[in-house]
Amino acid sequence: MARSWATLGVDLHLEPAGAGGLRRGLTDALRDAVRTGRLAPGTRLPSSRSLAADLGIARNTVAEAYADLVAEGWLTARQGSGTRVADRAAVVPAPNAATAPHHREPARPAYSLVPGSPDLAAFPRTEWLKAARRALTAAPHDSLGYGDPRGRAELRCALAGYLARARGVRADPDTVLITSGFAHALRILATVLAARGARTVAVESYGLDAHWRLLRRAGLVTRALPYDELGTDPSPLTTEGAVLLTPAHQFPLGTALHPDRRAAVVDWARRTGGLVLEDDYDGEFRYDRQPVGALQGLDPDRVVHLGTASKSLAPGLRLGWMVLPPALAQDALSAKGDMDTVGVLDQLTLAEFIASGAYDRHVRSSRLRYRRRRDALTEAVADRAPEVRVTGIAAGLHAVLRLPPGTEQSVVQAAAWQGLALHGLAFHRHPEAVAEAVDALVVGYATPPDSAWTGTLEALCRVLP
Amino acid sequence: MARSWATLGVDLHLEPAGAGGLRRGLTDALRDAVRTGRLAPGTRLPSSRSLAADLGIARNTVAEAYADLVAEGWLTARQGSGTRVADRAAVVPAPNAATAPHHREPARPAYSLVPGSPDLAAFPRTEWLKAARRALTAAPHDSLGYGDPRGRAELRCALAGYLARARGVRADPDTVLITSGFAHALRILATVLAARGARTVAVESYGLDAHWRLLRRAGLVTRALPYDELGTDPSPLTTEGAVLLTPAHQFPLGTALHPDRRAAVVDWARRTGGLVLEDDYDGEFRYDRQPVGALQGLDPDRVVHLGTASKSLAPGLRLGWMVLPPALAQDALSAKGDMDTVGVLDQLTLAEFIASGAYDRHVRSSRLRYRRRRDALTEAVADRAPEVRVTGIAAGLHAVLRLPPGTEQSVVQAAAWQGLALHGLAFHRHPEAVAEAVDALVVGYATPPDSAWTGTLEALCRVLP
Repeated sequence: MARSWATLGVDLHLEPAGAGGLRRGLTDALRDAVRTGRLAPGTRLPSSRSLAADLGIARNTVAEAYADLVAEGWLTARQGSGTRVADRAAVVPAPNAATAPHHREPARPAYSLVPGSPDLAAFPRTEWLKAARRALTAAPHDSLGYGDPRGRAELRCALAGYLARARGVRADPDTVLITSGFAHALRILATVLAARGARTVAVESYGLDAHWRLLRRAGLVTRALPYDELGTDPSPLTTEGAVLLTPAHQFPLGTALHPDRRAAVVDWARRTGGLVLEDDYDGEFRYDRQPVGALQGLDPDRVVHLGTASKSLAPGLRLGWMVLPPALAQDALSAKGDMDTVGVLDQLTLAEFIASGAYDRHVRSSRLRYRRRRDALTEAVADRAPEVRVTGIAAGLHAVLRLPPGTEQSVVQAAAWQGLALHGLAFHRHPEAVAEAVDALVVGYATPPDSAWTGTLEALCRVLP
Repeated sequence: MARSWATLGVDLHLEPAGAGGLRRGLTDALRDAVRTGRLAPGTRLPSSRSLAADLGIARNTVAEAYADLVAEGWLTARQGSGTRVADRAAVVPAPNAATAPHHREPARPAYSLVPGSPDLAAFPRTEWLKAARRALTAAPHDSLGYGDPRGRAELRCALAGYLARARGVRADPDTVLITSGFAHALRILATVLAARGARTVAVESYGLDAHWRLLRRAGLVTRALPYDELGTDPSPLTTEGAVLLTPAHQFPLGTALHPDRRAAVVDWARRTGGLVLEDDYDGEFRYDRQPVGALQGLDPDRVVHLGTASKSLAPGLRLGWMVLPPALAQDALSAKGDMDTVGVLDQLTLAEFIASGAYDRHVRSSRLRYRRRRDALTEAVADRAPEVRVTGIAAGLHAVLRLPPGTEQSVVQAAAWQGLALHGLAFHRHPEAVAEAVDALVVGYATPPDSAWTGTLEALCRVLP
């Protein structure tokens, strides 16, 4: 009910006494009046006695509501001058995207097939909230403190079990380190490598510029290995401190590293003391047979296995992990620092999410969703653009569309004009790549929500040659 | 019910069909049997037809449960060889604290008065979960993506409003940067300062060694300013790049910086172009009068205001923030990097927690709790150890107990023997402190849960001289 109180001089929207009781209702109504400016800064409020009489409620209820609002800073109470609306209680406007000095996102295109994101509309909100409730209810009080810099034991255990059965990783919870995502993990490893005297890290001819930049920022040179139809060729490796690979599903080209080369890269690491950094960003997503097991299983003493919830759940969680060779665990922990940790509530929730089987169920339903999209993409391209070949489609959240020579740049530009965000393969090519330069698109078919998928696919087909 | 199925040969604990239905119950029971080893790796499972007949349920239900468990990796299904328990489905043991190579926490003492933590048992779990549900339900899908590297707009707005009314901070949401806590913010600022050519940062004679180390790691020298009864003396400041202060409540000594010195430090910053880093770690907690407003209000162009949810809610949230001078915002964002961000779910939850008034209510009830403890501490010490003077008690979550000269170390040791963790003041003294060396204890009276408070206070009184 909204009524005007003589003593107060303004209308208050006071809800009938509900779960929160009369005191809560009065507090909310008064706060709202201050927040919206109906009660101006400096206004003197009626005494609790007179407002209570006016409302026909107990004086204590009014006094308590006043006290709440004084505590919150909306009102001030001074001896002799009564209760007033605080001067500071100014409304702060919402940030204005148009005038924000460093707003970094460009105007959003209508459609996006930029790779690197799952369908965010499919994030399992209800299941996640259920897991959060169970996790926080069960958590011991001291889990809310600064905690173990390696990450919560619950999550390290859950991940060790999951990675063992789903990815063939040989993981001891004691050597699992929780990070705020792949980039955080790579930053820690770059620090460790630089401290060990490494100068060069071998990378793939195609990959993510953000990762190369991150390594360079730590003072490391990135050297590109050759790429051919068997995947990345490790034979030129010599004295590099480490090699960064995507063995299960090359990003972005989509091949699985050939078994001979898997063996060769581990041999190199054993021979030279180098490290293999295995970026297993979407290892769970394989469509036509069992996922390729983790390279780490071949030699847990030489391979660091890196994973993330960014593709399987959502990047916004900022949760990643690495399984470290035991000899490296202490160095990595020191490089990370005790304070550079990840929120425990999300950690506990993910642990519960995995332990309850909800993670597997979500991965399974995502796999079905993305497989259907992949099939629709393949079919539509075969139908509408027979000169374009769809490759790298056995796994993952993206495909590579091979274009007729010399057309990549014009297709990406045409797409931009149509409001479709796309990455050409050139975007992912290392400056010193040792690989045939081909014209292609990297199509992140997981990115759109279901509701936009058909329109996005149609927009893509329109710009294909 | 637990029953043995002839076809399967083991007992399964199959719950009566509940909310999850028969399929879910069967899936859970089978998973449990595999997990615990009752169904050994390699075991061939009965056909879905025969297990269904045995159970008297639909064949499809069994087939679906098998499919779930194949997807989760517990079972494998191969053409011609039927469904088997996966080889990988090994149980991973929980981490063993005793043998963990780098387990960092010492054996937990029975009682702790180590400062720096609120009462974790008082974390408002129910209210937090409610806010999380509201926040995640209302969040747009794209909030779950990589997102704005400054932090979610919802939280930056909520904080700007809260800090304005509760702390007198002049905050534009566009210059608020969300971090994973104070240390993260200080690391970012240290990088900015070093890049601007700063070599020295002035600090207080008493503070946190972790902060000094963090600055040194960025290549900065820390120089201690003198401390006396008016607080830290800024008069020796010259060409330092910045000064790190706790103006509202000196950590650990508990004084509020004298108004003349507040003005002097801002004058220095204006004159030299230096920065003031205001560590407002527990500014909300003041007991006998209104909290001292933020120094930032005096000059938002020269003062960086730093805050954290670690004292007001829990360190485990890993949420902090800084309000930056506009001219510094872009540099700080670059130093932070696009990928070094904080989980969005906690950010959205805190925004909702603040906007709904739950944050203020929690701060208010915490203030009452800690004030009662402070009073009990003061009374008990006056009663039991009249030679000890309790100081720095107008605000915050800790007090300083001044001891007779020469007794600090022996009291801390006696406490350790009694199973009471305590910090002496010497623990917080800068190696080059310019301040009278006094014997004292820094007593974090917020640290114990309510249930342990009386015992902890009793343990303290026993070791006081």
